[in-house]
Amino acid sequence: MDKHVFAVERLENFIESVLVGLGVTTDHARICSQRMIEADLRGMHGHGIFRLPPYCQRIEAGGYNLRPDIKIKRETPVSAVVDGDNGLGQVVVTQAVELSIQKAEVSGMAWVGICNSNHAGAGGVYAALALPHDLISMYMAIGNANHMPPWGGTDLLLSTNPIAFAIPPGKEPPIVLDMATTTASYGKVKVAAQKGEEFPIGWMVDKKGQSLTDPRRIKDGFLLPIGEHKGYGLNFVIGALAGVLNTAAFGSAVIDFNKDFNTPTNSGQVIFTMRPDLFRDMAEFKAEMDMRIREIRTSTPMEGAEPIRLPGEMSLQRQRQMRSDGVPVAYPVLVQLREIAHRLGLPDRLDDTP
Amino acid sequence: MDKHVFAVERLENFIESVLVGLGVTTDHARICSQRMIEADLRGMHGHGIFRLPPYCQRIEAGGYNLRPDIKIKRETPVSAVVDGDNGLGQVVVTQAVELSIQKAEVSGMAWVGICNSNHAGAGGVYAALALPHDLISMYMAIGNANHMPPWGGTDLLLSTNPIAFAIPPGKEPPIVLDMATTTASYGKVKVAAQKGEEFPIGWMVDKKGQSLTDPRRIKDGFLLPIGEHKGYGLNFVIGALAGVLNTAAFGSAVIDFNKDFNTPTNSGQVIFTMRPDLFRDMAEFKAEMDMRIREIRTSTPMEGAEPIRLPGEMSLQRQRQMRSDGVPVAYPVLVQLREIAHRLGLPDRLDDTP
Repeated sequence: MDKHVFAVERLENFIESVLVGLGVTTDHARICSQRMIEADLRGMHGHGIFRLPPYCQRIEAGGYNLRPDIKIKRETPVSAVVDGDNGLGQVVVTQAVELSIQKAEVSGMAWVGICNSNHAGAGGVYAALALPHDLISMYMAIGNANHMPPWGGTDLLLSTNPIAFAIPPGKEPPIVLDMATTTASYGKVKVAAQKGEEFPIGWMVDKKGQSLTDPRRIKDGFLLPIGEHKGYGLNFVIGALAGVLNTAAFGSAVIDFNKDFNTPTNSGQVIFTMRPDLFRDMAEFKAEMDMRIREIRTSTPMEGAEPIRLPGEMSLQRQRQMRSDGVPVAYPVLVQLREIAHRLGLPDRLDDTP
Repeated sequence: MDKHVFAVERLENFIESVLVGLGVTTDHARICSQRMIEADLRGMHGHGIFRLPPYCQRIEAGGYNLRPDIKIKRETPVSAVVDGDNGLGQVVVTQAVELSIQKAEVSGMAWVGICNSNHAGAGGVYAALALPHDLISMYMAIGNANHMPPWGGTDLLLSTNPIAFAIPPGKEPPIVLDMATTTASYGKVKVAAQKGEEFPIGWMVDKKGQSLTDPRRIKDGFLLPIGEHKGYGLNFVIGALAGVLNTAAFGSAVIDFNKDFNTPTNSGQVIFTMRPDLFRDMAEFKAEMDMRIREIRTSTPMEGAEPIRLPGEMSLQRQRQMRSDGVPVAYPVLVQLREIAHRLGLPDRLDDTP
């Protein structure tokens, strides 16, 4: 497959012009394009420009409110519930993160829950927004399609429910952990199935709990939680905190956004931010974080293993590389993007010119 | 092996009298015995009365401060750092949880970090202390011995670093999740090795990353994180939040409490508590939690699988059973307890009489 790479700004502008072409305001389109490309830059291409075609499909089906009245439903100095009014997920969550940061800077910490939102992409992107403010952050979200049953069951009541953390660094790269509570994301499984590649053991099981590795049997398979019952438990807790607590959809209320393009998804997310200097002098905290990071990085690797990395380190390397060399776009995605550009009559149709 | 069971009160009184016999104050001995038996009652016997002999060994070696001046080092309406002054972990963490609850009831939420603490047992026990106050809680701790290398490495820089959550219920049993970020605890591995049982694949690997299942090779093995690099990342984040943030020991600073009985461990824990009614009417929150719990419990089980359970449900069943039928004490532990009772001249030597 050919490799197609594009400069960061070009892709940002492309996404923005597509969204504006479909009726999104310039402000919202800009925020959305930034969050999407930030996901690409972290190497989480499943949440980057790859998502533009399904977002377009949902916009055109009337599944989004393109003029949302995003508002605070409940509020204290340390908390809020943000009602996204069915706006673009990236826009709703960005506003919630900004609110959480403002509150944490004043009150020390803030937990902002979100309802009536939509798929917002990579959790690490939102957790990382707190880093320039020297805040620690935790993000949780409910996935937008249920691909996992409860542990020991067969009914699809749970999604990949991810959790992300960011911790500000001293001189070392920031710690950014972004993990689904399933062993593999459904996106990853779909990509492998498209290529006809056998699934590794541990990605999926069938209704009888038997390992499912045949990519042709993807429809018979369930995702598995990390650490068996542990990941199931964590997945449920995230559902309670990102969903039930904020009146957002969890369990059977989750709308499968791959099949249903116009029912409001009532997606739930939560962002918690906190000042490290509540607990310890900031410079001392950063110096010890750096020391612990280096201690791990310089520890002995396993025979034949890759260098030891810290959470977020590889993302930062990828980001630097893509900022200089361009962002790769998979060919099947590019074909869809070119078709959209053509249909909307956009000047840039992502031809392979620099 | 014979089964030896004892009434809850008898074991609580036994632990209390042992600790008082070794110089612990009556108040602290009572708190410690309660937290230990609560762990047994949740079925987490590795953190129950099983721990009394090593605690005694550490007390007698001078490893604890039996008259600790537990104090607040830093404080805001939503946060604190509690310095445990090398007191018993159960006592230090209980005080920190009580402080967090008081603050959360006034301010909505509170994050209380802990330093200069010691091994405190089961995280779920502390998370559950918030439940009668209708608070959501999250607990994290750094384990007291490093049995895990960073992902891809061989140096033992990480422990089992557990995370626990509790969510108050309506009519259903409370959600209590208590999970190590390793696939197995070292205690579990040790018990299997003692019995000569082969380890399941996924518990341990050797220095070359090969599965280690031979119980005779336990010394060559490392624990594995849940979800591979994901659990490693979560483990590190817990280390930063429960350790570095509170000036507690993490990484190479962790004292192996199985080998060193008198160096202060400077253990770190953190407890976060939060009022659900910041986000939603409490009765509505509880009603939906109940509904989501029932939806999962009544969903279709896998062929031949156990009934589907929610996190904390089995612990509650065990607790009820043990409260009526007694708490089992493994024979090798009982032998040690009887020896201690004999040595201290206690009236109850845990003979097999009701």
